Amino acid sequence: MYSLYVVTPTNPRPPRLADLTRLSQTLRQVSSLYWVLVDDAEKPSVQVQQLLRHSKIEHTYLTYQKEFTDLNCPEGFRDPKGQLRRLAIQWIVEHAHNGSVMFVLEDSVVDLQLFEEVKLTKGISVWPVGLTSPIGISTPIISKGYVTGFHPPSSLSSNNIPADMMGYAVSVQLLRQHPQTTFHCSDESPEEQFLQRLGARFDNIELKAQNCTEIYVWRTRTKKLKWPEKVNMLKEGNHQFTNLPTLYLNVLENNRP
Amino acid sequence: MYSLYVVTPTNPRPPRLADLTRLSQTLRQVSSLYWVLVDDAEKPSVQVQQLLRHSKIEHTYLTYQKEFTDLNCPEGFRDPKGQLRRLAIQWIVEHAHNGSVMFVLEDSVVDLQLFEEVKLTKGISVWPVGLTSPIGISTPIISKGYVTGFHPPSSLSSNNIPADMMGYAVSVQLLRQHPQTTFHCSDESPEEQFLQRLGARFDNIELKAQNCTEIYVWRTRTKKLKWPEKVNMLKEGNHQFTNLPTLYLNVLENNRP
Repeated sequence: MYSLYVVTPTNPRPPRLADLTRLSQTLRQVSSLYWVLVDDAEKPSVQVQQLLRHSKIEHTYLTYQKEFTDLNCPEGFRDPKGQLRRLAIQWIVEHAHNGSVMFVLEDSVVDLQLFEEVKLTKGISVWPVGLTSPIGISTPIISKGYVTGFHPPSSLSSNNIPADMMGYAVSVQLLRQHPQTTFHCSDESPEEQFLQRLGARFDNIELKAQNCTEIYVWRTRTKKLKWPEKVNMLKEGNHQFTNLPTLYLNVLENNRP
Repeated sequence: MYSLYVVTPTNPRPPRLADLTRLSQTLRQVSSLYWVLVDDAEKPSVQVQQLLRHSKIEHTYLTYQKEFTDLNCPEGFRDPKGQLRRLAIQWIVEHAHNGSVMFVLEDSVVDLQLFEEVKLTKGISVWPVGLTSPIGISTPIISKGYVTGFHPPSSLSSNNIPADMMGYAVSVQLLRQHPQTTFHCSDESPEEQFLQRLGARFDNIELKAQNCTEIYVWRTRTKKLKWPEKVNMLKEGNHQFTNLPTLYLNVLENNRP
């Protein structure tokens, strides 16, 4: 069985293959890891499927399904990230039995040291995240072994756990005890309200990353880049019998929205 | 002995620890790899030293030395990246005997598949790089097994190899046969002129990445981010006896310019 489900939302964009290649090269080093990749697209990308097969990581590749029930969302409401996370949570509750679940963005950084700690999550675990908006660090505040607050504090309720989206994990068992609990598009702060509904409190969250003194997760962002354009290949002359058509195909095919 | 020297220029900036952690998690999977990290700083960063030790990658961590001879550079001329690459080349010529040398930026992506191919470099090897400026792909053009040009072509000479900085490797032996050859600050296109001085021609470059049909290297860029500020920690109250001082110290100490 798997001890860690890593959920990664993705969407077709120029650096996607680069970001996913790099992330897969970290995840492949973690034992008993299962990767749930959820794509904001109606059909799967051939390149992403190849990348997943090649990575040898156990995985499920989900794509956006129009017929997927979007809880509490007004008609026509567009909330791609929430949609993808709901889809992942639904899949995990239906298919998994043990282990823990964490969210990892494709262009973020996770130190390998964290995964082994996260696997030990009994209910809800929390750790610091670096380079977050607005103040650069998101973390529980620990004093004499107890959680006394959050930095920065919640804007909704002083009793909440306003963890960053990449700063917490929940156990599969806890999710299965609350099968209706997910991310709602009506939520002001979806992560925080999700954790609240699962019963997270200052006195029951488990602290990771050396008792929250180390940064093992960073919210880096890959700069937006342009798609290579086939027109540039054609400009220079006839490249029909060269490596260029294959190269452009490998980069572009099925990776555009 | 080592079969691959990876040179990475770095400088103090907010996502540095994140970028280097992620890159180290790729490089640690490559056998017989030696990492030459060259820092645009006068003294080494404690955090970077810890990261390197922890990665278990064999390495040398060089910092900018004021007394380092800056070939052909007018006095006061500032060319940090060239300076760092010259420093790395000088160190390799003095210390290494075999293997090949490639440049990898800290926020780029290299597919693990490439390293084993690069290790086989006899003289000069070249491969495609994705997400490059201005057209998104930099590659030799191959027709019927022969190099017939470059995409995009060189602006200096149609016989040159205008490879991207991350699109080539040279053997240590070739470098030692040309001990005076390095990057010059007077060069219009330093990589291209470096390869030219080492004797790279269409008919002697070795082609990697499945005969230049696959993208195994991408020039991704991590978005610029702000430093976390200690003032934010102090705003909320007295955190002297919490985890916050250690956390801020771990992120900031020795990583500011």
